[in-house]
Amino acid sequence: MPIPPDAFFLDHAAGLPLQVQLRRQIIASVTAGRFRAGEKLPSTRALAGHLGVARVTVAQAFAELVSTDYLTSRDRSGHFISDSIERRLEAEPPASDTPRFDWGRQLEGRFARAQRTDRERDWRGFAYPFVYGQADPALVDHAAWRDCAMRTLGRREFDSVTGDLYDADDSELVDHIARQILPRRGISAGPDEILLTMGAQNALWLVTQVLLRPGASCAVEDPSYPGQREILLASRARILPVPVDMRGLPPDAIPPGVSAVFTTASHQCPTNSTMPLSRRKELLARAQTQGFAVVEDDYEFEMSFARAPSPALKAIDRAGAVIYIGSFSKSVFPGVRLGYVVGDPRFIAEARALRGMVLRHPPGHMQRTLAHFLSLGHYDAQANRMRRAYARRREVMLAAIAREGLQLASPEATGGSSFWLATPQGVDSGELAARLKSREVLIEPGAPFFAVPALGRGFFRLAYSSISAERIPEGIRRIALALEELA
Amino acid sequence: MPIPPDAFFLDHAAGLPLQVQLRRQIIASVTAGRFRAGEKLPSTRALAGHLGVARVTVAQAFAELVSTDYLTSRDRSGHFISDSIERRLEAEPPASDTPRFDWGRQLEGRFARAQRTDRERDWRGFAYPFVYGQADPALVDHAAWRDCAMRTLGRREFDSVTGDLYDADDSELVDHIARQILPRRGISAGPDEILLTMGAQNALWLVTQVLLRPGASCAVEDPSYPGQREILLASRARILPVPVDMRGLPPDAIPPGVSAVFTTASHQCPTNSTMPLSRRKELLARAQTQGFAVVEDDYEFEMSFARAPSPALKAIDRAGAVIYIGSFSKSVFPGVRLGYVVGDPRFIAEARALRGMVLRHPPGHMQRTLAHFLSLGHYDAQANRMRRAYARRREVMLAAIAREGLQLASPEATGGSSFWLATPQGVDSGELAARLKSREVLIEPGAPFFAVPALGRGFFRLAYSSISAERIPEGIRRIALALEELA
Repeated sequence: MPIPPDAFFLDHAAGLPLQVQLRRQIIASVTAGRFRAGEKLPSTRALAGHLGVARVTVAQAFAELVSTDYLTSRDRSGHFISDSIERRLEAEPPASDTPRFDWGRQLEGRFARAQRTDRERDWRGFAYPFVYGQADPALVDHAAWRDCAMRTLGRREFDSVTGDLYDADDSELVDHIARQILPRRGISAGPDEILLTMGAQNALWLVTQVLLRPGASCAVEDPSYPGQREILLASRARILPVPVDMRGLPPDAIPPGVSAVFTTASHQCPTNSTMPLSRRKELLARAQTQGFAVVEDDYEFEMSFARAPSPALKAIDRAGAVIYIGSFSKSVFPGVRLGYVVGDPRFIAEARALRGMVLRHPPGHMQRTLAHFLSLGHYDAQANRMRRAYARRREVMLAAIAREGLQLASPEATGGSSFWLATPQGVDSGELAARLKSREVLIEPGAPFFAVPALGRGFFRLAYSSISAERIPEGIRRIALALEELA
Repeated sequence: MPIPPDAFFLDHAAGLPLQVQLRRQIIASVTAGRFRAGEKLPSTRALAGHLGVARVTVAQAFAELVSTDYLTSRDRSGHFISDSIERRLEAEPPASDTPRFDWGRQLEGRFARAQRTDRERDWRGFAYPFVYGQADPALVDHAAWRDCAMRTLGRREFDSVTGDLYDADDSELVDHIARQILPRRGISAGPDEILLTMGAQNALWLVTQVLLRPGASCAVEDPSYPGQREILLASRARILPVPVDMRGLPPDAIPPGVSAVFTTASHQCPTNSTMPLSRRKELLARAQTQGFAVVEDDYEFEMSFARAPSPALKAIDRAGAVIYIGSFSKSVFPGVRLGYVVGDPRFIAEARALRGMVLRHPPGHMQRTLAHFLSLGHYDAQANRMRRAYARRREVMLAAIAREGLQLASPEATGGSSFWLATPQGVDSGELAARLKSREVLIEPGAPFFAVPALGRGFFRLAYSSISAERIPEGIRRIALALEELA
């Protein structure tokens, strides 16, 4: 693509001749990598028209730049950045010293410091990715999603794609969530109790901002989801970790005075324990007597293998103290970036106002396409397909884990798409992960999940959502080998 | 769609017979509107399988519910919610009094209170919508967008749609912004200086969070974009409004001690004045001496009619003090929800960490589709088409405004897709807007744009981005008539 005329501008007030200004802009652009040697400049006519000067003025400036070897000219083809431009740049005097704005002083570095460091961007490059939360292309119904997207992009629905919804949600998607998804968790909610979000991360963030006043205390499971800790750390709330046991969060260990309790009752993240119904009732009873709200992150409820999932906390919440978070990242694919919050209408109204201020709304295209995916039965079909595939992978995982003698840390867990394991005495799962990286195996060491990271050194998570059943045995074998070496 | 089995659950520990539990759940669901009279229940076999009880147990429970008129039974067709369920509900004793969680006390109402109240969701229902910031379907290249979306949804690129990018951006889109869009503003930036956002609103919010420490002061234009005020109010920064004149923000009126200055130099929002190059240099010189950062919201730079746009502030910013915000909402369509921030790499890193925590990343589908829209030349074609259409509408607007004797408040403004007008002495533009609503005309009264809303009563904005040239004259005529009545 040739350099467009509007890559150049003319400073009339600068008192500098055109060729000087053009030269400086060429230098700056080549230095920045925007222009390259040999690239074609606009015609003198086009540039003159853009800058509002006579064509002859541009032609003269170009001629000057050719004679000084910034440009080359080919008869009738036009002008080009000189091939020897790099040599010209080296010969340039240094730019005048403009003091740089002191961004180091201006920024607190607050967000980058709290940022998660536990995620591998190049997970696809690993032959044995036991990584959680990514898509598995083999399980995603690509054709169905494409078909749903095409419907959304049709003439009749294109308004839902192009318009600004302000702070509202796509009513078709809200309707499907209310009538098709939530009832499966025993939850009954109207549109004023539902807010769409950009996934569970966004839902957690919005909920935290609305729920926790500065200095408030909240109880969280320990270990827990690192993304949640990231959010709570940035919020400056007082975080009180409560160690989980084989049945998840123990309600009697919740400290007094907390404003909120964050829980993953269906599949405790990362141990995958399921909180039994008796504990759920106890938790809600305490919420009432102690006056705290409960934030229930119900990610991945669909992946329940041994038995039907318990009703969500929200389903048995008569007092309205539960804020429920759901997500389509696991059941559809993470890139869909859609989730939802279900709660009291006053809470939802606050969260909606905040979402509107922060990002307006999730793109209408994504919302409407997901609505079609739900209404046409593709979501159900895909959830079933995933469940079957995961059930098979789970069997293969269990067999390989048993065969290789790896140690399950949550042997009773029957849901989710990962296993929580323990290392042999003295083996650091962080070292294990580092060693395995060079052997094409990606695992998730335990430290990022714990309030005190050192307590996580003896644990690691192996997800099977992104690795095929065929590859699992070899991956597990390599893990066992690395464990032996380190033990 | 029949009621699915998993809309029901069984509480084994409750000590209540199945038909009692089912009855309560049916009552709750009908009350909430999830089940409706006549709706089909799951088969006894399916429900028994889901609940883990014997089929005969379910059959007995159903029979009990038929005899008490909660369900009806049709031989061989199954069971249905009784048509007289509403009467049954009225006869129910009131639910036990569970104290409700006191959300009123828990919430500060901080966000809902700061929320904008100036936007009409049903703008499409108006025959004469002089409303800013919405899509005009007639100008959007629907077929081209659809084509680009189909490419993104093809097998080769589907990973960009499904995967979790964590806090990264689609590199193709970033590349096109850097090489195709930013040069037109004279801006040179590498990938570490660019952050994609969910539109300009999200960009403004992210920038504000990173830039302004609690208690910091910032200078803003007055009048200015209401969405920006919403964000700054919620941030608890000290907002110092600086009245604009015919040339935009006067740099010598910026108070000392501000951390940042927010400006819309290309087309002042809402007056549309363009800040001349001499003032831009002065602003940047003051940024250096006074030590403030400059946030440049360059929305809608493409819509410049009388002359080529001045270079962006960022283009002449040697000190690196300018944070540049761009958006595709106006040049593509608002529903695309994509914008970008350009700034110092340290600033961008902080903003990226924050964005990752708040929402991860804009959906891969939208990013990649936009990348195709840019690379295939559709963006340029559409921007040109819009410019031509807007230029025509602009002429029609000017003629109608002159003919009807309306008063331009910024007669010298030559860009943007709206006009800023003044009402005759004593006429409140808020009253004008209310009166016009009943006459199918939508205008934007001035009050929401001003730090002191009362100062805006004498102004209003008429955008022509969503109204056809054919309808403009009648719309203007109705406005003039209403003004006469009110004067």
